[in-house]
Amino acid sequence: MHDARSSDPDKLGWMKGFPPAKAQRIMVSDASAYRFPQLRWSFSHYQELFPTRPIDRGNGPHHPLNLSLRDDLDAVCFKPIGASEPMRWDDSLSKNFTDGIVVLHRGHRIYERYFGALGERQHHLCASVTKSFVGTLAAWLVHDGQLDPHEPVIRWIPELAKSGFGQATIEQVLHMTTAIRYDETYADPEADIWKHLKAGGVFPRSADDQGPGCFTDYLQTVVQSGTHGEQFAYRTPNTDVLGWILKRASDQTLSEMMAERIWQPMGAERDAALQIDSIGFEFAGGGLLAVLRDLARFGEMMRLEGQLGNRQVIPKAVIRAIRQGGDQKKFAPAGYTTLPGWSYGSMWWHAHDDHDVYTARGVHGQAIYIDPKAEMVIARFASHPVAANAQIDPHSLPAYRALADHLIRES
Amino acid sequence: MHDARSSDPDKLGWMKGFPPAKAQRIMVSDASAYRFPQLRWSFSHYQELFPTRPIDRGNGPHHPLNLSLRDDLDAVCFKPIGASEPMRWDDSLSKNFTDGIVVLHRGHRIYERYFGALGERQHHLCASVTKSFVGTLAAWLVHDGQLDPHEPVIRWIPELAKSGFGQATIEQVLHMTTAIRYDETYADPEADIWKHLKAGGVFPRSADDQGPGCFTDYLQTVVQSGTHGEQFAYRTPNTDVLGWILKRASDQTLSEMMAERIWQPMGAERDAALQIDSIGFEFAGGGLLAVLRDLARFGEMMRLEGQLGNRQVIPKAVIRAIRQGGDQKKFAPAGYTTLPGWSYGSMWWHAHDDHDVYTARGVHGQAIYIDPKAEMVIARFASHPVAANAQIDPHSLPAYRALADHLIRES
Repeated sequence: MHDARSSDPDKLGWMKGFPPAKAQRIMVSDASAYRFPQLRWSFSHYQELFPTRPIDRGNGPHHPLNLSLRDDLDAVCFKPIGASEPMRWDDSLSKNFTDGIVVLHRGHRIYERYFGALGERQHHLCASVTKSFVGTLAAWLVHDGQLDPHEPVIRWIPELAKSGFGQATIEQVLHMTTAIRYDETYADPEADIWKHLKAGGVFPRSADDQGPGCFTDYLQTVVQSGTHGEQFAYRTPNTDVLGWILKRASDQTLSEMMAERIWQPMGAERDAALQIDSIGFEFAGGGLLAVLRDLARFGEMMRLEGQLGNRQVIPKAVIRAIRQGGDQKKFAPAGYTTLPGWSYGSMWWHAHDDHDVYTARGVHGQAIYIDPKAEMVIARFASHPVAANAQIDPHSLPAYRALADHLIRES
Repeated sequence: MHDARSSDPDKLGWMKGFPPAKAQRIMVSDASAYRFPQLRWSFSHYQELFPTRPIDRGNGPHHPLNLSLRDDLDAVCFKPIGASEPMRWDDSLSKNFTDGIVVLHRGHRIYERYFGALGERQHHLCASVTKSFVGTLAAWLVHDGQLDPHEPVIRWIPELAKSGFGQATIEQVLHMTTAIRYDETYADPEADIWKHLKAGGVFPRSADDQGPGCFTDYLQTVVQSGTHGEQFAYRTPNTDVLGWILKRASDQTLSEMMAERIWQPMGAERDAALQIDSIGFEFAGGGLLAVLRDLARFGEMMRLEGQLGNRQVIPKAVIRAIRQGGDQKKFAPAGYTTLPGWSYGSMWWHAHDDHDVYTARGVHGQAIYIDPKAEMVIARFASHPVAANAQIDPHSLPAYRALADHLIRES
């Protein structure tokens, strides 16, 4: 079952039929929606499982991503991290349980594939790719002077005074250098991430669950552990705190900000949506649903320093601030063996390599990968059984780089 | 609290703030979402409360409804049913807790207003207006020969053999002349409608609820009471059965059918959505969410015998079959005092009057009102505190007629 072919949701018949047979039902209440291989269906049908808030694309035309398909990419070879044998690009897609992938070169769609339960008009869960959207909005508000990154979190969220965020600055939250006690090991059912997700309604609660019942209640229970600002530590609550700050500072929901500042001006082709908790609070840490080509559009707009078509969607200075990345010295101790020399800043992952690569990453292999040197953007949705990029990077990062090198050579 | 001004959700501050104050939260789990005045907010934020399946408008341009606002409509007067004093058109809007209203004359928007929690880009719950969409699809499949209305329901749904639908024909379901035991009195907490809505996840279930857990399980519990085909009786399960038949006959979800056959070809301006139960079964009886102007587009397309712009969206013969209406003699005993001489057919309400009016109606005042003689279409969303059109008709039906007469006189 642990390969893409045998876990193909279409072939397994999940949720087919009217109604689906009992053995093929995928539900939230019995947690089947989160189990592999069912999650290969769930991630492409998320709005059917949870309450969501729409992100309005508006009534304008969408920005075209002209199709110039190339047939030379499937055979591009790369060496997976830690492997001795090379692998072909097309084999890497199934290896990583890819649900959809678009490669843009100079803004043209040179490669596009959909697998499993995903179609080109379907939303997919973006998971932590969501964070990079939230970080981009935050960098924008900093640029506009609406947010001062040196101010404390409690300037906007006094409710967090007694929490682990009580002594943190907005900048520390934005670059995830807060020191909080938070275990994000998905494989451990006792990890804090589950308490967090249950509070937000992302994971079902048992009837006798006495834990917090919404994101904002949960965030107030997070405690400090160590000194803020010294090290990078990837902790999803930082993004939920940042989302909270953005709402207070803008007096808008994240959905409204995303719609007005990104989806509408960039010419998205379909409404997106954000998962919300029981009191309408958006899951900034991972709740974005979008179609793949809109992720590609966003990546292309980032690559072009905020411009898409004739439109300056995001000010150039905002993109430049984001692309400064984070502090590599603070990142190194976190021990990401597949990301040597990288950093995390403004909720983006920065390679600091000779291609100036930076990327948005989701825990099941979702990604926006921007390679400015190769003028290449990759948007990918995936539903890898293991929620850990350390499992996914070996067959994706070198594959992306090989594609970039190929494009530079063959253009 | 029982007038539109004092129940205005914006002024009451429901769900404002990040997070909203405890007293201003609206949730499904505590059933506050269904209470008045909270429902004035809920109906305009339904996707934020429930799982839904999107209805894809596609990537094409939307059909324009050109704006030619008239300022002479607010002063149009009519006599409410049972009243001695006349009422102005604009007063009728607040009287009926209108959330949004569009009046089209010859396809132009001559009047458009939004109130309460609704904006022009927001979905509103259509409630039983949904039924008229489902009935239209059914009439279409009959026209195409995919459905034979004289065949029994169990030709498609053998699971219903032992239920009250076991002896019914598709035609009886389509025109709601089945004889089933089903109490649709919303005011009575013991009424069958609540068991139905709890099964579908439309209303929250208590932890010890042993009742059916999805629509299809519920429908199998409905029992017969009387002889099918003799009388009209408005019973929502008929539409859910019809929706089930449509899915089996087309091998598509209702969302797919709505998207391909209506939303895309008519040039809708925004995706719509359908509420679904815990196993993804769509609520055909009342689960459509849409923006108001798309309801107006649909009404205009119906008025023009299936054509909108240069496109024949629905075959003329389908519209003509729908417009034959139902059997007035079978309708009369149901005792709708505000609808003398009317009938129900193909899940539409037919006035059989000198204007050939027919209309889609939702239980809190939602409506698509088509007046072919006056070349007028009205689309309205409302959130009346009382779930009963008998309370709403006195200030809407004569108002619509007065507007129609005014337009005929003044054009």
